[in-house]
Amino acid sequence: MRDFSQDYSSLALNTATLGHNLDGQGAGWSPEKVIEGCASRGYGGIVFWRRELGNRAKDLGQRVREAGMQVVGLCRTPFLTGPLAFPSEQEIMDDFNRSIDEAAALGTSVLTIVTGGPEPDSKGILESQKILADRVAKAAPFASERGVNLALEPLNPAMAGNRTILMTAADALNVVDQVGADNVGVAIDVNHVWWDTTLAETLAARANGRILGYHLCDWLADTSDMMLDRGMMGDGVADLKAIRAAVENAGYAGSCEVEIFSANNWWKRDPNEVLDIIVERFKTVC
Amino acid sequence: MRDFSQDYSSLALNTATLGHNLDGQGAGWSPEKVIEGCASRGYGGIVFWRRELGNRAKDLGQRVREAGMQVVGLCRTPFLTGPLAFPSEQEIMDDFNRSIDEAAALGTSVLTIVTGGPEPDSKGILESQKILADRVAKAAPFASERGVNLALEPLNPAMAGNRTILMTAADALNVVDQVGADNVGVAIDVNHVWWDTTLAETLAARANGRILGYHLCDWLADTSDMMLDRGMMGDGVADLKAIRAAVENAGYAGSCEVEIFSANNWWKRDPNEVLDIIVERFKTVC
Repeated sequence: MRDFSQDYSSLALNTATLGHNLDGQGAGWSPEKVIEGCASRGYGGIVFWRRELGNRAKDLGQRVREAGMQVVGLCRTPFLTGPLAFPSEQEIMDDFNRSIDEAAALGTSVLTIVTGGPEPDSKGILESQKILADRVAKAAPFASERGVNLALEPLNPAMAGNRTILMTAADALNVVDQVGADNVGVAIDVNHVWWDTTLAETLAARANGRILGYHLCDWLADTSDMMLDRGMMGDGVADLKAIRAAVENAGYAGSCEVEIFSANNWWKRDPNEVLDIIVERFKTVC
Repeated sequence: MRDFSQDYSSLALNTATLGHNLDGQGAGWSPEKVIEGCASRGYGGIVFWRRELGNRAKDLGQRVREAGMQVVGLCRTPFLTGPLAFPSEQEIMDDFNRSIDEAAALGTSVLTIVTGGPEPDSKGILESQKILADRVAKAAPFASERGVNLALEPLNPAMAGNRTILMTAADALNVVDQVGADNVGVAIDVNHVWWDTTLAETLAARANGRILGYHLCDWLADTSDMMLDRGMMGDGVADLKAIRAAVENAGYAGSCEVEIFSANNWWKRDPNEVLDIIVERFKTVC
């Protein structure tokens, strides 16, 4: 493992950590200000959300690279299944393809997929996973032509009602297998998988070369909200070093992307303080 | 499978469904009134919580049986691990043994274990599971002498911060294996395991004869709270018939216990209405 006490160029910021993603939350830093704040502290990369890009994806990507960093990923495709997805498959696929174009314009190789929940009127998750696999398989060649890899992200089972049909790394790898395209893999997020006692085993057996992203935060012992109460690394109960070892042992050599949704704590702080604490914690507890 | 359109003697009520368990919530029915309400509708059993018993466990158990029902279980042992457990092992084990005595006095053969979370200062869940197995193994002979079986209940991973270290049926069966006592098994609760795409496989391979309880509710697509927003059967996205088939295929022939924590819906309704709707839903969607 690299010596991160000296080099933390693998550290990346997901802009959600600064609270962009709820209206009226966070300090409202522009993408330019986020780029400057990360670059000045030695971060190696940034992950944006589509809503921040407007029609400036290409310019913002260039600005990140000119600042000496990489665009590590883009969040995210539309929901591909479930009650929160667009009503028709055509609308879903159109927006899916737009998100691929935006990732390509931004110059990132990773577009994250949050699947959406079980299909209405289907009771079985496995049935919905098949629909998901079909839709990802349809978009995969379009993404491949544009140099974009698609990362299926399992979410915490707490979100399986309407936001995910992938609850474990094994679920996600099952769908990757069903899709059968070289540019489709998985993203591993501490918030979602930390509890899985079979994670290391699953990744060692099945994930080699197929992990496209690693997302950092911590799980607070007294987590109060399923979505918006994530902890800073070191403040919770997740075994961060073991999870990272499992991810890296499966061949992952990419960035560690800090993604902390925290409506009542981190989003209320000065982004400068947040960015500094992330660096310190990344050096010491991750 | 029995024809439940005619016979629903396997239906049991967990009293939490009537909102007893938060001060000021629910209609405040006494145990006697709950017994009468269930018996008059043809329920086959009741599950109590310790806080409702006072020193009347023996009398209440007799009253249930005189009403033609069974006491299907008692909730629950103290937390055995984690930050919410008593500070010392001695206090934990003393209260554990008291809960066993109360189950015996009540005349029920099943005492449910909600484990508590990861041990403070231990980062690994597996390490905490070993401590859990040790404590259950210590209490198991005491329980066996009193005719009480201990049911390890996996909880939804959303609760793994401080309320559970068993997130799946497989986790629970692993600890049952570690304990190695005939009177220790698992409880399967829809709220906690509905999302697990490996559930049927796990139960078929490993659970035969070791399921001690089956708990019914539904998972609402837009679940708003990890603890107190469970759905009535039929109102959510869980595949209730498939889960029940998996449980019964693993040899379970006991009661189906309805346990719905619902601070903002079912706990606010007239318990008579709740008990009627449960019967209707049990006949039609479970």
